[in-house]
Amino acid sequence: MGIQQKTVLNLQPINQCVRVTFNYDVHFTRGLFQLDNPLLAQAIAADGETAPKQVLAVVDAGFLKYQDGLLKKLSVYAQYYQDVLTLTGEPIVVPGGEAVKNDARFIEQIHQQINAAGLCRHSYILAIGGGAVLDMAGYAATTAHRGIRLLRVPTTVLGQNDSGVGVKNGINAFGKKNFLGTFMPPYAVLNDFDFLTSLDDRDWRSGIAEAVKVALIKDADFFDFIMTNAEKLANRDMDIMEKLIYRCSQLHLEHIAGSGDPFEMGSSRPLDFGHWAAHKLEHLSNYSLRHGESVAIGIALDTTYSYLTGQLLKSEWQRVLSTLKKLGFTLYVSALTEQLDQLDHPHCLFRGLTEFREHLGGNLTITLLQRIGQGIEVHQVDLSLYRDAILMLKDW
Amino acid sequence: MGIQQKTVLNLQPINQCVRVTFNYDVHFTRGLFQLDNPLLAQAIAADGETAPKQVLAVVDAGFLKYQDGLLKKLSVYAQYYQDVLTLTGEPIVVPGGEAVKNDARFIEQIHQQINAAGLCRHSYILAIGGGAVLDMAGYAATTAHRGIRLLRVPTTVLGQNDSGVGVKNGINAFGKKNFLGTFMPPYAVLNDFDFLTSLDDRDWRSGIAEAVKVALIKDADFFDFIMTNAEKLANRDMDIMEKLIYRCSQLHLEHIAGSGDPFEMGSSRPLDFGHWAAHKLEHLSNYSLRHGESVAIGIALDTTYSYLTGQLLKSEWQRVLSTLKKLGFTLYVSALTEQLDQLDHPHCLFRGLTEFREHLGGNLTITLLQRIGQGIEVHQVDLSLYRDAILMLKDW
Repeated sequence: MGIQQKTVLNLQPINQCVRVTFNYDVHFTRGLFQLDNPLLAQAIAADGETAPKQVLAVVDAGFLKYQDGLLKKLSVYAQYYQDVLTLTGEPIVVPGGEAVKNDARFIEQIHQQINAAGLCRHSYILAIGGGAVLDMAGYAATTAHRGIRLLRVPTTVLGQNDSGVGVKNGINAFGKKNFLGTFMPPYAVLNDFDFLTSLDDRDWRSGIAEAVKVALIKDADFFDFIMTNAEKLANRDMDIMEKLIYRCSQLHLEHIAGSGDPFEMGSSRPLDFGHWAAHKLEHLSNYSLRHGESVAIGIALDTTYSYLTGQLLKSEWQRVLSTLKKLGFTLYVSALTEQLDQLDHPHCLFRGLTEFREHLGGNLTITLLQRIGQGIEVHQVDLSLYRDAILMLKDW
Repeated sequence: MGIQQKTVLNLQPINQCVRVTFNYDVHFTRGLFQLDNPLLAQAIAADGETAPKQVLAVVDAGFLKYQDGLLKKLSVYAQYYQDVLTLTGEPIVVPGGEAVKNDARFIEQIHQQINAAGLCRHSYILAIGGGAVLDMAGYAATTAHRGIRLLRVPTTVLGQNDSGVGVKNGINAFGKKNFLGTFMPPYAVLNDFDFLTSLDDRDWRSGIAEAVKVALIKDADFFDFIMTNAEKLANRDMDIMEKLIYRCSQLHLEHIAGSGDPFEMGSSRPLDFGHWAAHKLEHLSNYSLRHGESVAIGIALDTTYSYLTGQLLKSEWQRVLSTLKKLGFTLYVSALTEQLDQLDHPHCLFRGLTEFREHLGGNLTITLLQRIGQGIEVHQVDLSLYRDAILMLKDW
């Protein structure tokens, strides 16, 4: 009967095609909240609408520890540029690091303040902090009124060269990283290099891992730059770090714009080279490993595996591992081997492959290295070779 | 110092442009879950990936009341098309109507089941029900893993010709309609006209209001069609209703695709003609008014106001109001006048203007009528004329 009626119905499906264009600028500056730096005010005034705009700040407590004058500075800045912006209420101070992504109450708190202040879609959430705080604040901003404008001010290397410039927002749930979130570009990104001086050594180093990653899959020259300058980077040379952040952001942004799949509707995710293990290790370490520290291990693992499968030259494999070492990264942690033979055990590293596939959907797709600067996607892996790779990291 | 250093810094901002294209089909059928109707299985198999795909159903309890064999039918259908799809666990049955959008626990429940079943981004949420259930299930689907595929099966006129075919998902919070949500197109929409036979008269009629709305602002011929057939529609003529739904969906879809602003980043929202008052009235009536019933009043109000401002001919104003009447809509409720002179009172209808502006952002922008088939945007309103308009509705 169904078919018969459908024939009688004779209504063609309507093929809908919705195209959405998002434009945003990623700025590089120093002294973002100095009164003589108009960048933030300009970013807000750029829409040409009647000022002043409401701005709700969300600030990383971990960052504030090292910048205790920041809230005062922000308030003086807002006063000075009052024709353009109004700080609405007190800034919301939230814990830094993954803790802020593990507790949905922070999202609720931001939503409550958005409601209480009567923010509209053309108001701003000004998120200041590390990658985790930006991810969380971004998820809150992009869901209130179906999307309030998000200004990201990343204060870590990782935020400035990777997560802060991209199109993802999210929090963790059910013990799974980024289980909840949105794809939605920010309104603008304001990278202030001055903020990096207050980072501790672990956070300084951590973000370099994402630069190594994007260099390995996309840009051999950039990898050479990192290799050549590895010691300077480890010794906190700011000039080299600025160049690294600029080039790394550029490569990430080019990939997002040019991949043809910015919202990851397919199964390919080359920018997540090294990340299947990294995400799992972060969780297994109870987030005592920083994201970048885990990524460095993930890169070392997938690079070693690429060598063992015969795709990557031995000399290139060695260059990658020695560069990571020179940068100061640890390439082996015991969580790598803990329940390695019990594939069903939630602590088994290889569960990270399943979880990675599950998050993205479709067939398993991970990126390996063909050579430095050139990734290649594979859909199957050989776990015994991966076991060998882990042992090689242990002995490195 | 800031400026000085910025000059030294000499790094140009990176201008990012992200273009995203969403394609989805809106299908029209009968007997969607009949075994000889392959439409649903085809929609799932269309991605060409290895089957079977996991499907989690979310079903409107209000709809189930009239279709008590539905869950069984769905399970038999899944069994028959097991090469293509697997129903993962029991369908989640949720209350119909706005109740389901007023309680965030339903979102949590769906997220929990998505996690428990290990759904991936290429799995499906199959949402079956009225507009409210689709809005809620869509919000849950588009935030899990940053977006699981959403198949919408609207079971009401309103869902089939308006909310179910668009790009919005959301729930209510803080007493504000759609305070939380996402812009994200569905994966496909499956409109089954058979479902409409079980609607009660209020729900049958309610959805016609959105057709009147889109006709008034975009298509005079379509308004003529509705006017000519108003009595048949009120008497539940299915053939006329099918034509109405098809044309109304088409107009909505064309607007979304062609407006240049499908995710409403600007301040213009012509499809929300009549909606500033409608949203407020729904809330003031504690959702005892259906959305479409409120929209009919909102249309009557803004049409009358358009006439009073001298923009719309008296004859056209009368045609609109008499058509709404013939369709069976009530055009006056006491909530229109309750606290009309206390602009700060939360029950004052005119607060709806503020809330409407706040939700969308920027300057107030509402659509009025220049003539039937042609809307016009205004940014200011005359409240005393609006008071007159309300009195005219009372006396109509």
